[in-house]
Amino acid sequence: MEQYLQDVPLNKAYRLLNLGATALISAADAGKEDVMPATWNCALDLEPCKATVVIAKDHYTRPLIERSGYFAISVPSVAIVQQVMKLGTVSKHDDPQKLEHSGATFFKLPNFAMPLTQGCVAHLIFKVIPEAHNQDAYDLFIGECVKAVADSRVFREGHYQYASADAQLRTLHYVAGGHFFALGEEVMLPEYGLD
Amino acid sequence: MEQYLQDVPLNKAYRLLNLGATALISAADAGKEDVMPATWNCALDLEPCKATVVIAKDHYTRPLIERSGYFAISVPSVAIVQQVMKLGTVSKHDDPQKLEHSGATFFKLPNFAMPLTQGCVAHLIFKVIPEAHNQDAYDLFIGECVKAVADSRVFREGHYQYASADAQLRTLHYVAGGHFFALGEEVMLPEYGLD
Repeated sequence: MEQYLQDVPLNKAYRLLNLGATALISAADAGKEDVMPATWNCALDLEPCKATVVIAKDHYTRPLIERSGYFAISVPSVAIVQQVMKLGTVSKHDDPQKLEHSGATFFKLPNFAMPLTQGCVAHLIFKVIPEAHNQDAYDLFIGECVKAVADSRVFREGHYQYASADAQLRTLHYVAGGHFFALGEEVMLPEYGLD
Repeated sequence: MEQYLQDVPLNKAYRLLNLGATALISAADAGKEDVMPATWNCALDLEPCKATVVIAKDHYTRPLIERSGYFAISVPSVAIVQQVMKLGTVSKHDDPQKLEHSGATFFKLPNFAMPLTQGCVAHLIFKVIPEAHNQDAYDLFIGECVKAVADSRVFREGHYQYASADAQLRTLHYVAGGHFFALGEEVMLPEYGLD
């Protein structure tokens, strides 16, 4: 899928997160890598684009973020829902081969060490803005986006454009257990323009 | 629509926000009231349920939240997308009759002063956890949920259950301009249970 990835201007990157989809969080430090799902991710600012993500203290991913100072938020598609669940129900603390056993495949962007998951429609790389109180009290991390790419089949000209795309490329919206919804139909109010 | 609202146990309230839908934020203080959309809302903790919401300093709603110490997050349905846009494109600073002119209708829950919007599938009331640095530096407010209700036609037994519901009750997921998506098809992985 990464053959379709194209750069997204950083002043439009927040839109990649606006749908509120479940995400995959990736990090790497000193040769260690992990990927975990996080439903609690959210845009925080327009320009520079910032975002929040909640990463509990028991996740293998967390110290990789703390030590490297970077994390990625990727937006997985319906096509990899099984892999997303496996990445969320197995901890690398328990299975050092978690990534290999997940069924997902990974790639990297130049200059960034974290493994990104194939089958995502967008990937955003964030530099942590250290906020010790938020991290300690709320498991809340804030990052500033330094790189954003999206699948040009579904994100073009600053908008998700799903009307002509394969349904397998829809984003995933999590409830609980093994229960998700895919993104659905467009709702357009043309009198407000497309911005 | 409020005839269908039923209490949601507070330890399941985070699920009302998990879909990542655009929300309406309501607040009231000393006889002043406002409602504004906020796409940047997100669950933050399970129990007690907490959430974050981003409210910029120029919104009429913001001092109502700061002074009263409370805000509501409501999850609007497709049926009221026009009203959501009007509540977001007109400021009460410019039109003191913004709520009346929005086309939306409002109601209140006992013991809470903020106006809640009819046509939402869930309403959660939060008590602000004061965090001056987050509010000042990031426009980020954290609240603890003290009350949650949801439309029993679409949220039952701790899950959004849209299979048998009217499409007009689907949640809204915002991109930019007048461009939203509705929530779509269920994606179930029954081997992981419903939790």
